[in-house]
Amino acid sequence: MITVEDIKKAHIRIEPYIQMTPVLRSASLNQLSHAKLYFKCENFQKAGSFKIRGASNAVLQLSKKDLSKGVVTASSGNHGAALSLIVKQLGGVVKVVMPNNTPRIKVNNVLRNGGKVIWCKPNQDSRDKTLAKLMEDTGSVIVHPYDDKRIIAGQGTTVLELLSKCPDLEIIIVPISGGGLLAGTLSYLKNKNIKVYGAEPAMASDAFRSLESGKIETNKSTNTICDALRAQIGKVTFPIISKYVDGIITVSEEDIIYTMKLIWERLKIIVEPSCSIVLASVLKNKSSFKGKKIGLILSGGNVDLDQLPW
Amino acid sequence: MITVEDIKKAHIRIEPYIQMTPVLRSASLNQLSHAKLYFKCENFQKAGSFKIRGASNAVLQLSKKDLSKGVVTASSGNHGAALSLIVKQLGGVVKVVMPNNTPRIKVNNVLRNGGKVIWCKPNQDSRDKTLAKLMEDTGSVIVHPYDDKRIIAGQGTTVLELLSKCPDLEIIIVPISGGGLLAGTLSYLKNKNIKVYGAEPAMASDAFRSLESGKIETNKSTNTICDALRAQIGKVTFPIISKYVDGIITVSEEDIIYTMKLIWERLKIIVEPSCSIVLASVLKNKSSFKGKKIGLILSGGNVDLDQLPW
Repeated sequence: MITVEDIKKAHIRIEPYIQMTPVLRSASLNQLSHAKLYFKCENFQKAGSFKIRGASNAVLQLSKKDLSKGVVTASSGNHGAALSLIVKQLGGVVKVVMPNNTPRIKVNNVLRNGGKVIWCKPNQDSRDKTLAKLMEDTGSVIVHPYDDKRIIAGQGTTVLELLSKCPDLEIIIVPISGGGLLAGTLSYLKNKNIKVYGAEPAMASDAFRSLESGKIETNKSTNTICDALRAQIGKVTFPIISKYVDGIITVSEEDIIYTMKLIWERLKIIVEPSCSIVLASVLKNKSSFKGKKIGLILSGGNVDLDQLPW
Repeated sequence: MITVEDIKKAHIRIEPYIQMTPVLRSASLNQLSHAKLYFKCENFQKAGSFKIRGASNAVLQLSKKDLSKGVVTASSGNHGAALSLIVKQLGGVVKVVMPNNTPRIKVNNVLRNGGKVIWCKPNQDSRDKTLAKLMEDTGSVIVHPYDDKRIIAGQGTTVLELLSKCPDLEIIIVPISGGGLLAGTLSYLKNKNIKVYGAEPAMASDAFRSLESGKIETNKSTNTICDALRAQIGKVTFPIISKYVDGIITVSEEDIIYTMKLIWERLKIIVEPSCSIVLASVLKNKSSFKGKKIGLILSGGNVDLDQLPW
């Protein structure tokens, strides 16, 4: 179990390595949603997403010896870039196992932050074997993208900051993929009177179905534009989420794309489809959320500007 | 002449009607430019640009009688939307004369902020006649987009806020079109030891040429992507600018588009080409600006997301 104290300690630990991101508001989006919205802008976070929080919290607890051997992970996205950035700052080296069909922008983001890319084929088996061989050859330490208590505690610092600025929120909505951010949020809020929902693409609804069945379900396909929400809910994250969450809201691709464009147009910020989903989940359930003060976690802003979905 | 006191009074007057916009920084853009950059983000301003500052300062000085007759302006862009917003808040009505080929997004922005659109043909003669007839028929008051001391004093509040957060800037760069924002900036800074440059598209370089010749020059064409920088330098703004500015930097279309994409990618914010030009003018003159603390005014964020230039 991850305690509020763990998250507070994580925040003190990582504070020198992260940005205190702003909370934005929009009169026109409030009007459109019939609610009072507070957007926590992790798209402005270092390396472009909240992932630096968990990555820093994990890496800052490694021994010098471990760090000197190098750190490895498998990530097609934001975790790889964030991990690369924090390890580089501490003088270590990160190797990120990435599928050879990863979009250019995500590869560049790892490289720009000082990581090295190790290619694998775009399937789970190749990824696992490449990672295992890398660890064996180098003695490197693995930092998992979400199924790790240090990562979950780090991600929980997002909502700690949000509540420090907006203490009277009634609802918080968080995107869910592997579940690190949602499990961290719930770990921080479990004794508070705030409802917490996960928002998940209908096209990769493993968390929604896992909650229904009471056991971890898999996705047969993850054909969603939300490239950061295709991971499988984790063994560490699932028990926390199933115990504390108030519900998972699934959203169609069409609604996600419509809402992404709306956020760009009204808030004038670049956000990924993977977090536009949180506003989409409000807009499709207006009557449930009417008049409420809602915190929405905009988790990242790493978008390929040459491949926009409209 | 517009005094520092005029601008301070304008700020107190308009403060309830504007946002205190943030100043953003970027480690990667600092590295790329070899300078220390401070971005004043007026793209987050109400109605999407700094124009609400001047519009509010002018309208709040109108008599109730004048306001009740309605306000008119001619604007194909941000001034029309800003004026509509402030007048609506004060219970009046704005009519904006717009060319019938104005992009949909700019028309919508006027309508969403409560303005009425009066169409004219896309030439100066039709615009002037339509505006004159409107004033005659209705007795409405005109609020000019830039050639008005109240407007210039209002726009000068942008740099007042920037300096209140970043008092030790060495250089400030401002986009120039009609010159309201630049003249306001210079009026506020004229006795301070800070260099001020205007940034202008090479394809609409009337301000650059006017400074060279010492008299107001016109543009034969304004074939630039910077739709907010196509106006002619004004009779009120030119004397202020020619007296105080340290130079006008002209920028190519290619450099403007490259820099716009760079700002979107690294700062994760939506800005118009018309203000991306300020960073472009630093990047093409790296050696002149090396190591300096530079304030860059990002003047607006009203972009048609269906018509991106890359």
